[in-house]
Amino acid sequence: MQNIEAYQKSFLSYLEGFTVNKEPKNLYEPINYILKLGGKRLRPVLTLMTSEVFDGSATEAMNAALSVEVFHNFSLIHDDIMDDAPLRRGKETVHEKWDLNTGILSGDAMLILAYQLFENYEPQIFRALAKLFSKTALEVCEGQQYDIDFETRDDVSIAEYLKMIEYKTAVLVGAAMKMGAIVAKASEEDQNLIYDFGRFLGVAFQLQDDYLDAFGNPETFGKQVGGDILENKKTYLYLKTLELGDDAEKSNLLEAMSSASIANEAKVEKVKALFNTSGAAEATQLAVKDYTQKAFSVLEKLNISDDKKQILQLFGEQLMNRRV
Amino acid sequence: MQNIEAYQKSFLSYLEGFTVNKEPKNLYEPINYILKLGGKRLRPVLTLMTSEVFDGSATEAMNAALSVEVFHNFSLIHDDIMDDAPLRRGKETVHEKWDLNTGILSGDAMLILAYQLFENYEPQIFRALAKLFSKTALEVCEGQQYDIDFETRDDVSIAEYLKMIEYKTAVLVGAAMKMGAIVAKASEEDQNLIYDFGRFLGVAFQLQDDYLDAFGNPETFGKQVGGDILENKKTYLYLKTLELGDDAEKSNLLEAMSSASIANEAKVEKVKALFNTSGAAEATQLAVKDYTQKAFSVLEKLNISDDKKQILQLFGEQLMNRRV
Repeated sequence: MQNIEAYQKSFLSYLEGFTVNKEPKNLYEPINYILKLGGKRLRPVLTLMTSEVFDGSATEAMNAALSVEVFHNFSLIHDDIMDDAPLRRGKETVHEKWDLNTGILSGDAMLILAYQLFENYEPQIFRALAKLFSKTALEVCEGQQYDIDFETRDDVSIAEYLKMIEYKTAVLVGAAMKMGAIVAKASEEDQNLIYDFGRFLGVAFQLQDDYLDAFGNPETFGKQVGGDILENKKTYLYLKTLELGDDAEKSNLLEAMSSASIANEAKVEKVKALFNTSGAAEATQLAVKDYTQKAFSVLEKLNISDDKKQILQLFGEQLMNRRV
Repeated sequence: MQNIEAYQKSFLSYLEGFTVNKEPKNLYEPINYILKLGGKRLRPVLTLMTSEVFDGSATEAMNAALSVEVFHNFSLIHDDIMDDAPLRRGKETVHEKWDLNTGILSGDAMLILAYQLFENYEPQIFRALAKLFSKTALEVCEGQQYDIDFETRDDVSIAEYLKMIEYKTAVLVGAAMKMGAIVAKASEEDQNLIYDFGRFLGVAFQLQDDYLDAFGNPETFGKQVGGDILENKKTYLYLKTLELGDDAEKSNLLEAMSSASIANEAKVEKVKALFNTSGAAEATQLAVKDYTQKAFSVLEKLNISDDKKQILQLFGEQLMNRRV
């Protein structure tokens, strides 16, 4: 087993060799562009690491890992169009740098390329990977649709929100790990357990993202703190405030979120105060811990050595402390 | 073997049962909508027919046939966005009836659903179908990109144009047939031959579409005659006029196509006259015949009975006479 930095390094060097030098340039250049934009490459690292956890080889898992990363970047291109986002990792988004049509079509091509990356595996493995991939990819689309639907709904429940982030974010983390297990020919039981580990960790990660968006350290969080509040996003913090707050806190939150007259900084401070006094901030931290714990409980059932379990637990802890 | 109408009928009844009754509705309703919009269902019919040509069953080929149709409709949704088209088969396009984001996301989900339709086939068949599908789908994206690129280029060669229509249209016809052959477990040689048959027929079909768009009978063609001319499309007729015409014809064509002052009807008549006098109209009809003949020559090499060859030839003739 290697450490995370080593997996990142070997993945990046493999990614370097994937540059698509095909015609038409206008289709493939945006693909190379977004794949080289950077990021922590956590999903493919998880695929490589999981393969080794189950005594498979990271090298053999490389194409599955790359598929996960290509799919993830496909979803970023299309989501950025839907969100009308000008920037991604501080650089122009594909539809901004090129145009809408390029964003749509290059994204489509990436979704297909992600499937093609399974083609060098033997038929049984190919089928297992492609089936898992399709199920996951469809759930990611469903999660994105729920996210869009929620924007115009004012009756989103906590359960619905959790399902949305599970689909939009967490299932791909689970699938990334399960793919490593499939390539390593782990038992079906272990494949499903590691999927659940990744899925729970993915939910915890997203809930923590909600928390850090409001309460994170501006110097280490990487995104604009308060961004969700300024975009009036119905995050876990927001929904919990409506659940736990008293009447005054609820109406103050709704007023702050819908008011156009309040200045940005004041809005962020006011809403953060409501997140705190209502108990929503604490409830969110509890939920992060709860999902992290759920993930760790799954670990115990895995048929792997204790030191492998420790490696996975350490990864989970690092992820939750955002040191990776 | 059944006739085309019988294949159409059994495919439509299978399609009826495919209605996706899943949440979120905003993702799946547009999919059901476009799949029920109609059309001749030629591609899936070819899959079913080809399976029986190679002594397979049409029933077994049904999911492969449906995958081809789902993919085709995915490409229609995304192409209609890129072309800013308000109507498809006389009805509102998906992005018009819903919105841009729905068009993008529902299209993405359809591309994934198309792969899922292979999942009930055994691993070897699944892999063969999915590989062919990915290769074809990527070529269709490349064809669409070439088509977009050509809009802003004035040096498109006939060879480039033929490659574009081969990728954008013809390879899917070939793949639809090859999928039927794969399901029927035809030899690899026969699989490749039937692919070429479909591909050549697909090029012939598209060239004839170019011809009929200008010279077809308005009562039977189904689209607005002269539509390509009014959209300044660089069709085979247009490119051949620039190749075969004398200097006056060439400059008259370029002038007519770029002039904003000329009335629609006059423009169509003027350009059609140039297509005729330059010899481009005749050359296009010749090219249609040539590609149809190429398709028929491939038939001869197939390891199937003569009456099966005749069925395929009859289909090709009907297609070229647009009686199907």
